[in-house]
Amino acid sequence: MTEASSSAMQHNDNDGESNPYPAHWGPTAWALLADLRQRCPLVQCLTNFVSMDMAANTLIAAGASPAMIHSLGEIPDFTPQTHALCVNVGTLSPSWVPAMKAAAELMIKLGKPWVLDPVSAGASGFRLNTCLALVGLKPTVIRGNGSEIIALSKASLGASKGVESAHGSSMDALEAAKSLAKSSGSVVAVSGAVDIVTDGNRVVGVHNGVPMMQKIAATGCAVTAFIAAFVALDPSHPLEATASALSVFGIAGELGMVLAKGPASLRVHLIDSLTALDEAALLSRVRITDM
Amino acid sequence: MTEASSSAMQHNDNDGESNPYPAHWGPTAWALLADLRQRCPLVQCLTNFVSMDMAANTLIAAGASPAMIHSLGEIPDFTPQTHALCVNVGTLSPSWVPAMKAAAELMIKLGKPWVLDPVSAGASGFRLNTCLALVGLKPTVIRGNGSEIIALSKASLGASKGVESAHGSSMDALEAAKSLAKSSGSVVAVSGAVDIVTDGNRVVGVHNGVPMMQKIAATGCAVTAFIAAFVALDPSHPLEATASALSVFGIAGELGMVLAKGPASLRVHLIDSLTALDEAALLSRVRITDM
Amino acid sequence: MTEASSSAMQHNDNDGESNPYPAHWGPTAWALLADLRQRCPLVQCLTNFVSMDMAANTLIAAGASPAMIHSLGEIPDFTPQTHALCVNVGTLSPSWVPAMKAAAELMIKLGKPWVLDPVSAGASGFRLNTCLALVGLKPTVIRGNGSEIIALSKASLGASKGVESAHGSSMDALEAAKSLAKSSGSVVAVSGAVDIVTDGNRVVGVHNGVPMMQKIAATGCAVTAFIAAFVALDPSHPLEATASALSVFGIAGELGMVLAKGPASLRVHLIDSLTALDEAALLSRVRITDM
Repeated sequence: MTEASSSAMQHNDNDGESNPYPAHWGPTAWALLADLRQRCPLVQCLTNFVSMDMAANTLIAAGASPAMIHSLGEIPDFTPQTHALCVNVGTLSPSWVPAMKAAAELMIKLGKPWVLDPVSAGASGFRLNTCLALVGLKPTVIRGNGSEIIALSKASLGASKGVESAHGSSMDALEAAKSLAKSSGSVVAVSGAVDIVTDGNRVVGVHNGVPMMQKIAATGCAVTAFIAAFVALDPSHPLEATASALSVFGIAGELGMVLAKGPASLRVHLIDSLTALDEAALLSRVRITDM
Repeated sequence: MTEASSSAMQHNDNDGESNPYPAHWGPTAWALLADLRQRCPLVQCLTNFVSMDMAANTLIAAGASPAMIHSLGEIPDFTPQTHALCVNVGTLSPSWVPAMKAAAELMIKLGKPWVLDPVSAGASGFRLNTCLALVGLKPTVIRGNGSEIIALSKASLGASKGVESAHGSSMDALEAAKSLAKSSGSVVAVSGAVDIVTDGNRVVGVHNGVPMMQKIAATGCAVTAFIAAFVALDPSHPLEATASALSVFGIAGELGMVLAKGPASLRVHLIDSLTALDEAALLSRVRITDM
Repeated sequence: MTEASSSAMQHNDNDGESNPYPAHWGPTAWALLADLRQRCPLVQCLTNFVSMDMAANTLIAAGASPAMIHSLGEIPDFTPQTHALCVNVGTLSPSWVPAMKAAAELMIKLGKPWVLDPVSAGASGFRLNTCLALVGLKPTVIRGNGSEIIALSKASLGASKGVESAHGSSMDALEAAKSLAKSSGSVVAVSGAVDIVTDGNRVVGVHNGVPMMQKIAATGCAVTAFIAAFVALDPSHPLEATASALSVFGIAGELGMVLAKGPASLRVHLIDSLTALDEAALLSRVRITDM
């Protein structure tokens, strides 16, 4: 590969070597991030209490505008003003379910994207049934860990290890993800050592991020909100937007890891890095593969 | 101005130049902060889920004692023990409204101050009507961004850009603030590049803070809680207390910015700086003007 | 004491001097932390909104898996999968009480430990009665500040200084703690300059930690969740697990304080230090005494 074979290769402050991953993904991801910073999409989050701080700060760091407005009565007035919706069931209670459904239905009716994070989907019958009902409302993207995607795909309860996946690798969940994507019509993303994104046919792998990101509470929830912001920009290409969001968030973690001494300082440096991320650093680090 | 013309000028570790702003505000702000550290006012916050962490840590850093007790049934027992109340509608739900109203009414009955943050007041009819009802309960101070103050002043819905102001400058909202202050009897503060504080007649501008503070989720909510702590100390001078609180919080941001590499590290250093803020640094940096 | 008299003494990177505290506690605390990292207990937290971020990150840093699942309808399915339960009444509302009681009753029925944090127990009649009812459900451990333990022991309201203790020293609450432990059958821990842990007969003091930890919101709530994770590992020795957890969390604060410039950076460095804490640092710093 010559130096000029790809614009993505001209900028490489990563490790002194060219980025060996397919070159088209870098410009795709950068175009979305640059567009996000320009357009500042408004992302409504009906999300869990643990993640609200981290999700809000992630969205703002990226250039989006978060709103945690969640009451059923506000949805008809407010939701049409938004550019994307993120629904996360982490601290689910029955009183929140009607608003989640109403907001999702309204987004679909308006032709706008919405993203589902089925946290601990297999932890209880109530939770699983709520998640399955939400899947029936045609989320643009579903992002979870392997256990969650398997629970949704099989529509069955399973031993849930809290918010952590009980499955060692996101690869284990690949078949479940493809099956869920085909049955739901959603793009499905599975977080893991390698993140998987599929629309049921095409499968891409995202190789960014560092293991310590899993030691920060609500990083999964935050990246789901981040996906919503990316999908807001190009709702007709949710697979590309999802893979790009996962890669960019992972890159922010990689850059943050340079300064981090543990998970709490990584959280700080990840957000700072996401705010400052420039084209050169992004292009040199995007690692997305077709699988 | 000679070096000795103001005690505020004797301490100047800011930029090597004298503080050219009116000298009386520095000692006013310092006296309030010193009093806050001495008296540790108890501030009840009925606030949104996103802001609870940031608001609690801001209050503690300043020397106040936060309590997020919010149930209707606890108000008769608990609220009389507090020194100020902060009501913030960011993640409003119908079940919280009776407690917000009961707590506000009790504070007024007891002759104690309460502060309203009308987050995204124009985002829905339910939200606007709730905020207007709360304004009718005579908050000591109302603090919002330009969009929120305009929505309250005009009692009308408006395109809300999440929690961010859709209006470029707080100056745009000056007339709305004066009108709202006159009709409500509250001191009204409008956050922006320059913060405006008015009682309907007098107007002061607070020129402290750094732009990156807007990239930290819930800084607006935190500063409203911070205003409540200041107003607790001198309820009969809410304009002075509000302007001082905005200035001190902004100074903590300025000092934090020296070490910050982005919004997440600014959040850390802002809180650290607020804890450590001393008289000399404060006096050299207070920038409040009569307008 | 010779260098070889205790394995705890062989590692001393603290201050160049031997740890003069009873040597058996160090290995006890280290064994529990090592076991926690190995077994990753799942800890369900029905906790307050302010503390969720800090508690979740503390548990993850230590090696445990947090879950903030709180709905009544999920308890029969989910709670049996957990290894410990933490109930914290900080932002209590009537709708949460049935789930708190049901989860506690189920844990007792299953022979698994649960821990109560009676935040501001004396702040209202509703709160005090709820806490007393929870005490009647036989928590394995109750952890609070002096005011809270006294309120529970006397079953009386008291002037509550927010979440801070109105009592100067945890020693003041020693008699209340012993009385409460005897009447409830719970181990009772009182946070203070010296933390006290008692089962009604035996009393130990934990001398770790730094004063600035009290300036971080929800450190008390976080340490209660941390105690739950420790008690999960050895439910038949709750006094040892509780004292060890308090010591380890305090050590993380001591190590974090080396780098901290204020409470917000201490929070970051405390979590980082907890993640990285090794046997040598722990053994040299554990300061637990029989009283």
